[in-house]
Amino acid sequence: MNKFIRVNMETLEATVGSVPEKYVGLGGRALTSNFVNDEVNPTCHPLGKNNKLIIAPGLLSGTSAANSGRLSVGAKSPLTGTIKESNTGGSSSQMLAKMGIKAIVIEGVPKEDKFYIIKVTVDGVSIDEAPQEILGGCGNYDAIKILGEKYGDKVGMALAGPAGEYKLASANISFKDPDGNIRSAGRGGLGAVLGSKRVKGIVIDPEGAEPVPIADPEKFKAAAKVFAKALMDHPVSGQGLAAYGTDVLMNILNEAGGLPANNFTGGRIEHNDNISGETLNATITERGGEGKVSHGCHKGCVIRCSQWYSDKQGKYVTSGFEYETIWGLGADGGIKDLDIIAYIDRAMDDIGVDSIETAVAVATAMDGGLIPWGDGDMVLQIVKDMAKPTPLARIIASGTTVVGKVCGMFRVPVVKDQAIPAYDPRSVKGMGLTYATTTMGADHTAGYCVSGNILKVGADIDPLKKDGQIEYARAMQIGTAAIDSSGMCLFVYFGIADNPGGYQALIDMINAQYGLELTSDDLDELGKSVLKVEKDFNTRAGFTNQDDRLPEFMEYEPLPPHNEVWDFTPEEIDQVWNF
Amino acid sequence: MNKFIRVNMETLEATVGSVPEKYVGLGGRALTSNFVNDEVNPTCHPLGKNNKLIIAPGLLSGTSAANSGRLSVGAKSPLTGTIKESNTGGSSSQMLAKMGIKAIVIEGVPKEDKFYIIKVTVDGVSIDEAPQEILGGCGNYDAIKILGEKYGDKVGMALAGPAGEYKLASANISFKDPDGNIRSAGRGGLGAVLGSKRVKGIVIDPEGAEPVPIADPEKFKAAAKVFAKALMDHPVSGQGLAAYGTDVLMNILNEAGGLPANNFTGGRIEHNDNISGETLNATITERGGEGKVSHGCHKGCVIRCSQWYSDKQGKYVTSGFEYETIWGLGADGGIKDLDIIAYIDRAMDDIGVDSIETAVAVATAMDGGLIPWGDGDMVLQIVKDMAKPTPLARIIASGTTVVGKVCGMFRVPVVKDQAIPAYDPRSVKGMGLTYATTTMGADHTAGYCVSGNILKVGADIDPLKKDGQIEYARAMQIGTAAIDSSGMCLFVYFGIADNPGGYQALIDMINAQYGLELTSDDLDELGKSVLKVEKDFNTRAGFTNQDDRLPEFMEYEPLPPHNEVWDFTPEEIDQVWNF
Repeated sequence: MNKFIRVNMETLEATVGSVPEKYVGLGGRALTSNFVNDEVNPTCHPLGKNNKLIIAPGLLSGTSAANSGRLSVGAKSPLTGTIKESNTGGSSSQMLAKMGIKAIVIEGVPKEDKFYIIKVTVDGVSIDEAPQEILGGCGNYDAIKILGEKYGDKVGMALAGPAGEYKLASANISFKDPDGNIRSAGRGGLGAVLGSKRVKGIVIDPEGAEPVPIADPEKFKAAAKVFAKALMDHPVSGQGLAAYGTDVLMNILNEAGGLPANNFTGGRIEHNDNISGETLNATITERGGEGKVSHGCHKGCVIRCSQWYSDKQGKYVTSGFEYETIWGLGADGGIKDLDIIAYIDRAMDDIGVDSIETAVAVATAMDGGLIPWGDGDMVLQIVKDMAKPTPLARIIASGTTVVGKVCGMFRVPVVKDQAIPAYDPRSVKGMGLTYATTTMGADHTAGYCVSGNILKVGADIDPLKKDGQIEYARAMQIGTAAIDSSGMCLFVYFGIADNPGGYQALIDMINAQYGLELTSDDLDELGKSVLKVEKDFNTRAGFTNQDDRLPEFMEYEPLPPHNEVWDFTPEEIDQVWNF
Repeated sequence: MNKFIRVNMETLEATVGSVPEKYVGLGGRALTSNFVNDEVNPTCHPLGKNNKLIIAPGLLSGTSAANSGRLSVGAKSPLTGTIKESNTGGSSSQMLAKMGIKAIVIEGVPKEDKFYIIKVTVDGVSIDEAPQEILGGCGNYDAIKILGEKYGDKVGMALAGPAGEYKLASANISFKDPDGNIRSAGRGGLGAVLGSKRVKGIVIDPEGAEPVPIADPEKFKAAAKVFAKALMDHPVSGQGLAAYGTDVLMNILNEAGGLPANNFTGGRIEHNDNISGETLNATITERGGEGKVSHGCHKGCVIRCSQWYSDKQGKYVTSGFEYETIWGLGADGGIKDLDIIAYIDRAMDDIGVDSIETAVAVATAMDGGLIPWGDGDMVLQIVKDMAKPTPLARIIASGTTVVGKVCGMFRVPVVKDQAIPAYDPRSVKGMGLTYATTTMGADHTAGYCVSGNILKVGADIDPLKKDGQIEYARAMQIGTAAIDSSGMCLFVYFGIADNPGGYQALIDMINAQYGLELTSDDLDELGKSVLKVEKDFNTRAGFTNQDDRLPEFMEYEPLPPHNEVWDFTPEEIDQVWNF
């Protein structure tokens, strides 16, 4: 990966340069966060001309390593105002890596009121005007088809959906996956940044791409085998996720009393059977839609958590149908019909909005009186309305904080204006520390303490107690920052957390690819450095320790059934950053 | 003023205690800001149970001093997240002072889902359930009538209008004035705080109130005479404001090229004659509505800036019809009909929303495509819709930042989420420094540098140059904090800025009332201490120097006709706080 592409949308010119020395050893989140901290003025407006968006494959992307096909996107977030790294599956990461492209940077805004398509090939970059028919409300599914007809079926794509065009703060970036469906760099509104630069899409044509060079192929192959086996050997990454998808967590969190319900006023629901992973699996099996059940979001995935959800006629509805989405609509918003939830999930992918932010915004709006509790039909209509947004659709697509504002609420489940996902901090306390302290705003993937708190993978910590949580949240965030830089799916953690050989194999693969001699200490240092770079950006943007706090209501509204409140003191929370 | 009232809305109990020693020498903003900094947790949610609202007359309130009838309200702001002092005219300040009431504090939230009326008399405090007919959309004009029938015509009132009931961030607190009309503690959403405590209104029954005790009545009387003469001798406070109202500024700012137009994309308009103070005066004179023209917002006002605006049939429409409101709708939003603007102003008073925040939100929404430019009929309907708020009405009533979010905009004229008023910082640079650095979010009344920049009262500074602006913005903010603590209307500044005798008379009145020997240095120290107390709160709430910045677009979008950008560096801006 020796090419560093810069696309200037003001001049409509692109340059393909060599990789700046400082970024040569970096990939994924390490690269995007360093770049944003280096080149973006932390006090700039996220939707103004001075923000920059960067897309970068991970260190191992494009290789045969299992689950190495994730892609990082970075910018200043219009949702949170913080630095943001959001990563995704799909086919683009592996294509870019094989095309030798370390990163694509998009900067400036066009002078004319037009939208553009950036086309990237091994020979260079061109900028076309976007076809009119994919603008002004055209969904991503149709846009992928139309662009496929123009640019060929084999291209990768990154799209700003309608929400991105309108620069709404929940807009994600939608990536074409190997099945021609949609994967998303979901959180933090990066689709709005793409839309602000008037980039409707990036088309990646891999024609002429070559295998990623490997310094020591034999060593790589051996390590890759050990690594893949580690993933397959663990019951979560080897069996549970493939069988039930991430929605396997529904019954687990419900049992644990950590499943936020009715806008974070309860921790357990009665209708869990309607929306659980077991029900999801049974429905998919029964319907047998197009012969697919579980599959991966990118080539080389051995975990295959993505579920292929079809309707009663067996016709594809959605995939990448995640626990957090089903939780947000089904438990936090009380929509009891899995089919309706699936249609809403599809609509969110089609419009291009983060399904977590949107689902939590919906549940908050129900609590605020804007939407009747559990009214899935109305929610589906609101999401569809985002194509030509009504005022209500704009409110929901602007995220949970805006919903809280327009409803005059104090029970607004956000940190740094980003919605808290599917694990209540009052009964999964380690998770609360990650929400509070991550540089990203509330984000379970920034340090998934559910693992040791609930699943008992990698650690065994009482979720209702403070003991050990600070150290654990710190370690999980550091480790995650390193994994996010490797191009690996976060779920590889299950395979390597309790398997030192699996972890060593991950390091061995990096060393074999690049001819390095890294140790686990080096990965640890990498993770720490990424977090510190991100914190530096946020501090210069005006964030302080006072922003590292959960919403106040969690301190005085006990969560049934355990009736716990959030009781970490500010001083304790701040200790997460003692490294 | 020896009574300090605390109303606990959780227990529905009130106590009338003596004034805490620390607060004995304080009044108005000095008292409210010290109290909020002492008792409100800076990181609390403004609409949650831990915020507190305090209402306090100024030091001179209730006396015969001209223009001493202002009342301060303080709390943590739901609009800005900062400390907030918002002051108002009306009759309540003088009543409270004569009843010996130093302050009313409202804390906690009720357990039941009901609204209440707090009734304050010389004998104590009672809490009634609010009449059903004034809830759920009843406008303030009707509510004042209904409460007047219940509590008597002579009572003072402070109301949360519909916007306050719904806890929307632009909600003001509406005070009954001597004519039975409405004056507002406008900025920062304090009506939403009142609504969050489920206080529909405060009724103040002055029965049995006595004259405010004066330590040296003769000295007071002499000083009051000198002071009133100083106000009358100055052309602005003695003539201009009475003749044309604050809208006298329309042509002045237009001529200066500092009149923000079309959401801060221009600095001058062509249709200024439609909406100028001269036209306002001619219209009022021609219509002769109910025999009133200019008048004061409280008894004892000699400036009488308030204009009594009637419709073509001579029927009262609105008063307190300010330049900033007319500017926001008429110049920034391009509504060219003064009658429509007056109806909107009345509707905003009736609903209880800050007319500056709402007008700027409207203009921003026009730029964002939510409302057609200049469509006054639609704006009037949106404001009326706030009574039972539609999604669009909620968006507008939530303020300019929310409008910017739902429209995906970067041209959002706010500082600390509060709308920038009617003086463009690029061509009235001193004003920009106040907007950036005041503890209140963008607020022209926090240090009215228009005075020396444009009106050449108190100073003569080139509005397009940086020279002298830092020192001036600092001095104006310090002086204003002192005036805001005295109970004086800010416009007394015009009478004392260039008249040392007038200023000395103000000090003499305070000394005569309380038996003190304060000097101008003491008032200066008072102003400084108020600002530092407020800054302390904001810092503990998580605000930093990075929040003391104007919106980024002003740094790169030059403002016609002078084509100036905002060019103070961060380091220069921060010098305002060097005291």
